[in-house]
Amino acid sequence: MSKYPLALQQLIASLKMLPGVGSKTAERFAFHLLTRPSESLEELSEVIATLKIKIQNCPECHCLMDKEVCEFCDINKRDSSLLCIISSPKDAYAIEETHTFRGLYHVLGSLLSPLDGRTAERLNLPQLVDRISHLKIKEVIVALDSTLEGDATALYLKEQLGKLGIPVSRLALGLPMGSPLEYVDVGTLTRALLGRQIF
Amino acid sequence: MSKYPLALQQLIASLKMLPGVGSKTAERFAFHLLTRPSESLEELSEVIATLKIKIQNCPECHCLMDKEVCEFCDINKRDSSLLCIISSPKDAYAIEETHTFRGLYHVLGSLLSPLDGRTAERLNLPQLVDRISHLKIKEVIVALDSTLEGDATALYLKEQLGKLGIPVSRLALGLPMGSPLEYVDVGTLTRALLGRQIF
Repeated sequence: MSKYPLALQQLIASLKMLPGVGSKTAERFAFHLLTRPSESLEELSEVIATLKIKIQNCPECHCLMDKEVCEFCDINKRDSSLLCIISSPKDAYAIEETHTFRGLYHVLGSLLSPLDGRTAERLNLPQLVDRISHLKIKEVIVALDSTLEGDATALYLKEQLGKLGIPVSRLALGLPMGSPLEYVDVGTLTRALLGRQIF
Repeated sequence: MSKYPLALQQLIASLKMLPGVGSKTAERFAFHLLTRPSESLEELSEVIATLKIKIQNCPECHCLMDKEVCEFCDINKRDSSLLCIISSPKDAYAIEETHTFRGLYHVLGSLLSPLDGRTAERLNLPQLVDRISHLKIKEVIVALDSTLEGDATALYLKEQLGKLGIPVSRLALGLPMGSPLEYVDVGTLTRALLGRQIF
């Protein structure tokens, strides 16, 4: 009796799969949805149900695509000598927003984390090596998270791709924009010093 | 090009209706949903689509119900001489969890907030007064938020229901459980002092 109606319990359980959403937040979301007009619930329901049908992963670069061809793989519009390795499709949009990269992408889909069972096999390196030689890539840019897993994966990629004899670069590590020096952590400052640039 | 596929944009827009969810969180939720198996998306979609069909508001007390009859209105199981006034259906579940109230509920659905256009008409007082006399209620407990709007509504209810000649009580205002005195705000401490109890 003291617990919610069944349909509400099911909704709360489903909402808890969202990242960072626990019981309390899921309950708040669910009760809020109850107050919304039916049309807006139908709209949300429809868009969730058709999400995976409308959006696919490009078989080549694994970025998202909602058309027949992948816009990120369009050789006519992109510089096919540069390849940027990212861990998730979302990162491509962040890099596009910088307007400083017009090359191709390659989504790894995972970062190395042996303790969580994410080993090198998950990175599907043979396909990446195939793409690099097939596309005649001249430089590989590793654009992974600046975290333990990102660093480990970047080092592994450098080791493996180094054998191909093409330059493998990495995103610069240093001060983020607009940060006063006194608030920068020692790790970032160390990297910024080691990677100092002549200007 | 730098923006997400259309279906993803629609999902992000829909998710932004959730309370406390802005663009960044909605994007995070949407990209997370993309990584979920189709079955779990279908389940979520289904439960959202059927939510308003499966769960109704009781025409009597306005609590939620998913059966033909409202469990909160079951006179055989509840003490029909006590009526607890709450602002939203969710509050009934919180009060049920205390296991200290077995009376009936009445959901106002709104709190007074004239600046936001929520005036006394929204409270539907005639229906409340009807219920009180029809059910022969002996005590009304006002269990509203301890906020400006909750206080104003409680005072208004006391004034209106006082005319009926039955006791109108209110939830005690004081220290929350487990709070060291030094961290209690001055408003709470004032109320706790004024409402001190002989023991």
